[in-house]
Amino acid sequence: MKIRDLIITPIAFRDPPLLNSTGVHEPLALRCVLELVTDDGTTGLGESPGDKEHLERLAVAREAVLGMDVFATTAIGQAVDAALGGPGGPVPTTARAGVFSAIEVACLDAQGKITGRPVCDLLGGAVRDAVPYSAYLFYKWAEHPAQDGRGPIPDEWGEALDPEGIVAQARRMVDLYGFRSLKLKGGVFPPDEEIAAIRALAEAFPGLPLRIDPNYAWTPETSRYVARELDGVLEYLEDPTPGFDGLASVAATATMPLATNMCVVSFETVRPAVERGSVQVILSDHHYWGGLRRTRELGAVCEAFGLGMSMHSNSHLGISLAAMTHVAAATPNLTYACDTHYPWNREDDVVVPGALRFTGGSVPVPDGPGLGVELDREALAERHRTYLESGRERRDDTGYRRRLDPSYDPAIPRW
Amino acid sequence: MKIRDLIITPIAFRDPPLLNSTGVHEPLALRCVLELVTDDGTTGLGESPGDKEHLERLAVAREAVLGMDVFATTAIGQAVDAALGGPGGPVPTTARAGVFSAIEVACLDAQGKITGRPVCDLLGGAVRDAVPYSAYLFYKWAEHPAQDGRGPIPDEWGEALDPEGIVAQARRMVDLYGFRSLKLKGGVFPPDEEIAAIRALAEAFPGLPLRIDPNYAWTPETSRYVARELDGVLEYLEDPTPGFDGLASVAATATMPLATNMCVVSFETVRPAVERGSVQVILSDHHYWGGLRRTRELGAVCEAFGLGMSMHSNSHLGISLAAMTHVAAATPNLTYACDTHYPWNREDDVVVPGALRFTGGSVPVPDGPGLGVELDREALAERHRTYLESGRERRDDTGYRRRLDPSYDPAIPRW
Repeated sequence: MKIRDLIITPIAFRDPPLLNSTGVHEPLALRCVLELVTDDGTTGLGESPGDKEHLERLAVAREAVLGMDVFATTAIGQAVDAALGGPGGPVPTTARAGVFSAIEVACLDAQGKITGRPVCDLLGGAVRDAVPYSAYLFYKWAEHPAQDGRGPIPDEWGEALDPEGIVAQARRMVDLYGFRSLKLKGGVFPPDEEIAAIRALAEAFPGLPLRIDPNYAWTPETSRYVARELDGVLEYLEDPTPGFDGLASVAATATMPLATNMCVVSFETVRPAVERGSVQVILSDHHYWGGLRRTRELGAVCEAFGLGMSMHSNSHLGISLAAMTHVAAATPNLTYACDTHYPWNREDDVVVPGALRFTGGSVPVPDGPGLGVELDREALAERHRTYLESGRERRDDTGYRRRLDPSYDPAIPRW
Repeated sequence: MKIRDLIITPIAFRDPPLLNSTGVHEPLALRCVLELVTDDGTTGLGESPGDKEHLERLAVAREAVLGMDVFATTAIGQAVDAALGGPGGPVPTTARAGVFSAIEVACLDAQGKITGRPVCDLLGGAVRDAVPYSAYLFYKWAEHPAQDGRGPIPDEWGEALDPEGIVAQARRMVDLYGFRSLKLKGGVFPPDEEIAAIRALAEAFPGLPLRIDPNYAWTPETSRYVARELDGVLEYLEDPTPGFDGLASVAATATMPLATNMCVVSFETVRPAVERGSVQVILSDHHYWGGLRRTRELGAVCEAFGLGMSMHSNSHLGISLAAMTHVAAATPNLTYACDTHYPWNREDDVVVPGALRFTGGSVPVPDGPGLGVELDREALAERHRTYLESGRERRDDTGYRRRLDPSYDPAIPRW
C-alpha cells in the first residue's frame, strides 16, 4: 500500500495569553494538518507544529516518502532523516524526528483504517481504556492587549496572576473536565509567589497530585530552595534549572522526583541524564521523539533505567490529542497523567466533535479504526484562511511580549 | 478478535552432539509449537522451548489469555505475568517473559493473517529485505555414542574437534548457506586450542567477521589473555567470563567489543551492565526478552546507551526462524549477523518447506501474511510422537555428558 499523496495544510487557531518563562502565547497558535493518501484512497491524519522551518522540512520529507509503503514506517523514518541531512547535518535531531513523527502518525492512522484496527492496537494494544490528563494551569492575562489597530481579545478564562486566580482557574478546569492532577506553568513570577500558588492549590484540592514547571527559570540554588519549600507537596518538579548538571545538583537534595522535557529530548540525551542522575521522570512527546512507536520505545528505555514517564504538550488540537491518547493507552509505564493544552484550544478544533471527550480527567481511547477522529474540512479551511491572513511564520512568545513591553528581559535563569 | 483456543504441542527433534562449556547436546532437542485460534478461526503460530516447567507455565498462561483480544498483546503480557506470580513471585523474569513471548508471536502471526500483513509490518516494517545470519560452528563428535541399548547416531556433519575440523565445518556451512560471518561455540577445549581454531578460520576465510562464545568458561585473567591473543581477529568476544564485574574487568582492556546473552537477559539487567561497562553488544532473543515488540524496544535501549545489538539462538525450527527474521528485519540497529542453530535442526522442521531459505547467508523476510510459514501437520504429529516416546522432560547437556563420562566436571569457569 503506497503513499500516493501527502497534503500539508498550515493552520492558525486562537490561543489565550498564557504566560511562561520566555514570554506569552500570541493570539494565534500555528500548527499544520497532514492528510496522507494511499493508493487505495485511504486517508491518514497527522498534526504537527506550524512554524515555517518545519513546514519547509515537511515539504522536503514529502518528496522522499511519496511512493513508499505506508506500513514501512521505520524505513520512512530513515528516508526522512536522510532527506533532511541525517545526523550531523543542518537539521537538529528533534526537528528531524518531529518531521517524521507527523508522517508516522498519518501512516498509523491510515494503517488502522486499512486494517480496521484502532492505532493503539498497532502499538501492542491498550493497557488502559482511558488516558488520564492533568489540568494545565497558566498564569494569564484577562485579554490579549490591543495592538496593530485591533481591539483587545478577551477570553472566557479571565485573568490569573496570583494564587487566587490560579485556584479559580483550576476549579474551573476540574469542574469542566474532571482532572485529577494539576500542573502549573511557572517561571513567570518570583518563586515565592509561585510557591504560594502551589500551596493554595494543595489546600484547595487536597490529595490531587501537583506539579510546577518553570521552564529553566531558576538557578540551581533557587531550585533547591523551591524544592525544600515544596517538600511533600509536589508530585514532581519539572525543569527547574537548565542543563544536565544543573538538574543533577537539584536532584541530589530534592525530595520529589525531577522531570524534564527540555533537557532529555531525544534518545541520545537519555544517557547523560542517567549517568548524572539529572532527572527521575522523562516527559515524552511523540511530536519530537519520533512518533508513536518511538514513544513506546522511550517507555522501554525509561523502564530499563528506572525512570518514570509522563507526557509533554504544546498548544494542539484533536488529531494530536487522539494520537497522544492512543500511544499513552498503549505504553504500560506511562503512569503519570499526561499534559495537554487542549482545553485552551479545543474550540478551534479541526476534527468532527464527538470522538474526543474528557471524563473524570481522562480521555477514553477513541474507537477505531485508526486514530478514530475525522477531519472537519470546513473548520480546516477556516483555520487555514486564518493562517494565510495572519502572515505569521513562527511562534514567538518573547517577541510578542517585548512588543507589548519593550523592557521585558527573557534571559533565564531569571531567579 | 478474541483468543478462542491455544493448543500447545511439545515436540522433540534430532540434534547432533554439539559440545559446549556445560556438556553436549543430547540426541533429541525439546521444543513446543503453539497454535493460537481466534474466534474467527484464524490460527497463529508460535515456537518455544519444550522443557517441562515451561510447558506447565504455558498451561497456566493459556487459562489467563483465553478470551482476550488477540491485538492486546501488552495486556496479554500483563495477564501472563500476573498468572505466573509477577515480579518477586516464584517464576524468574526471563521465564515469565519466555512464556509471554511464545504467545505474543502467535498473536502477531494471527494479527498478520487477520490484517493481511507480514509480521514485520506490525513492528514498523522491514528496513532490510533479508536478515544476515552467522554460521554457528560447534566442536562436535562424529556421532551420539551408543547407549541405553541403542546404536550410535552419526550425522552428516561428522567430527570437529580441532582447528581443521572447525574449518571444514565452516567451509561446508558457507558452501551450503553462504554465511558471511562465523561464530564458534567455545569453552570446550583449553583456550589455546580454541585460539588456534579462530586463527585457522581467519586464515581460511579472510575478511569474514569471527566470534567466539565460551559461555563463561574462562576466568577474567584467561579472558584477557584470549582477548590479547585475538586482538584484531575477533568481531566480538561473547560471554568469556561470568558476571557484570568479571566482564567489565575484561572489557577494560579488550580491544574488541564484548557481547553477552548470559549476563544481560532482561530489561532490568541492562543498567548494571551499562554502569559497569561490562559489555558493548547485547544479544537479543525474543524467546526470553518477551517477544518481538520487546526485542525492538531492546533495540531502542541499546541505541540510547550506545550498545550494539546482535541475536542469540538456541536449537530451534522454522517458526522461530521466521519470527527471528521478521523482528530482525524490523529492528534498525540489529546490525550484527544473527545466530541460528537452524542448519543443525532444519531437517526435522515442522513448517511446510519453501517459505524459509538462505541466500548469501541471509534469510529473506517471508512473504506475509503473518509469519509467512505454514504448519506441516504430519511433521508436527511425528515430532510430537517422538517427544512422547522419548520420555524426556528437559534439556540436560551436563547430565548427558556425565552419563557418557562420569568424570566430566561441568564447573565453570574452567580455565
